[in-house]
Amino acid sequence: MKIDILSLFPEMFAGVLNSSILGKAVAKNVVSFKMTNFRDFTTNKHNKVDDYPFGGGAGMVLMPQPLFDAVEAVCNEEHTKTRIILTSPQGKPFKQHDAEMLSKEKKLIFICGHYEGFDERVPEFLVTDEYSIGDFVMTGGELAAMAMIDSIVRLLPGVLGNDTSAVTDSFSTGLLEHPHYTRPADFRGMKVPEVLLSGNHEKIAEWRLRESLRRTYERRPDLLDGYKLSEQEKRWIKQFEQENQDD
Amino acid sequence: MKIDILSLFPEMFAGVLNSSILGKAVAKNVVSFKMTNFRDFTTNKHNKVDDYPFGGGAGMVLMPQPLFDAVEAVCNEEHTKTRIILTSPQGKPFKQHDAEMLSKEKKLIFICGHYEGFDERVPEFLVTDEYSIGDFVMTGGELAAMAMIDSIVRLLPGVLGNDTSAVTDSFSTGLLEHPHYTRPADFRGMKVPEVLLSGNHEKIAEWRLRESLRRTYERRPDLLDGYKLSEQEKRWIKQFEQENQDD
Repeated sequence: MKIDILSLFPEMFAGVLNSSILGKAVAKNVVSFKMTNFRDFTTNKHNKVDDYPFGGGAGMVLMPQPLFDAVEAVCNEEHTKTRIILTSPQGKPFKQHDAEMLSKEKKLIFICGHYEGFDERVPEFLVTDEYSIGDFVMTGGELAAMAMIDSIVRLLPGVLGNDTSAVTDSFSTGLLEHPHYTRPADFRGMKVPEVLLSGNHEKIAEWRLRESLRRTYERRPDLLDGYKLSEQEKRWIKQFEQENQDD
Repeated sequence: MKIDILSLFPEMFAGVLNSSILGKAVAKNVVSFKMTNFRDFTTNKHNKVDDYPFGGGAGMVLMPQPLFDAVEAVCNEEHTKTRIILTSPQGKPFKQHDAEMLSKEKKLIFICGHYEGFDERVPEFLVTDEYSIGDFVMTGGELAAMAMIDSIVRLLPGVLGNDTSAVTDSFSTGLLEHPHYTRPADFRGMKVPEVLLSGNHEKIAEWRLRESLRRTYERRPDLLDGYKLSEQEKRWIKQFEQENQDD
């Protein structure tokens, strides 16, 4: 996969793209990154990328020209079908299934905004996908792009080794992940649940599914709207409700 | 504000913490960052931070000991009332009002996970707040911590200059932000809405509120559940519904 990143702050990316799993994915040639500073595409003499908003108001707005020209330059040879992704708080909430869908593309272009926002002609006429990573505001789109890129690249074949696994990820199953425990079994008097030390694989699998369901029910009941409960799971939910009433 | 960051990959942070608004906030002494690699707190001879999960399964789990010891070391003098924040997909969804609330603290500690996850005794007994930035999975908690830190620090007094503004941010008003436009008024035939060039401030304010409401209605109707509509806004929503039926 080729990923082009258009940003006014390319220096923000090096530490992230060279580290850990992303750095290994680059070393394995599974993905390559190319940074473009769209300030290099300005045609005005002071290399200004932003200007005051029409209609007044606080904040500066990114002008359309440098972004249109920068995108056209990076997709010249393969203009068709390239996904051009904008990160903004007004976008569609980015979810695990979006990461899965985008991980099947050959090339992605990310545009990172900054300042008060973009001229609206950028999302309307230039980009194919506008995503938000959450209902909070950041100083720019760079961290949102990095978060999306990380979640996409880790799904590419060959990126996660045997040490890690995407199959039981939270959201991949529709539920939050069950709790994990490792050594020591007793840490300062805080103990690991007995069942996990029992060696009974059937009981362990049942405990994990039940705890995965419990924390989804307690913390993110909204996720259960899109989840098909088995008969056993329905019985467990009734028990959780009962336990909550007893508290 | 003092922010301690506990991570196995401190080199991921430099580019982000030194750039743009965060870098300026550090230069102005509004915030200071301290990185701690919790691998330095291991007591085993190979400096291992993770181990196999009890009960079997793929992936490695971060052991409790290095994290408990690292947190205790960084909060030794001011142990009381320090918020200890864990980033994980199982956490509470991080929202703008969480950024606002956390921006009032004097000190924050962020713990960034990696690999398959944490030993559950870490979220249960060590941390005060467990947050998720979205329903997608990343290779580690570093980018989630950076995103949260960015959204918190930009709210600190003195960080955003006159060039930018937090007041009309998306989510601060309860609605998505209205579209912005800047020069040129006609870019390759794509034109700015006439009203914004009219100089009529009342009409411009009305257009902006209406468009802010329209994109919230179209893209994120869930946000309207917590929003008190004025009579005018109720009439606009009826119009949007009518327009959608006509399409």
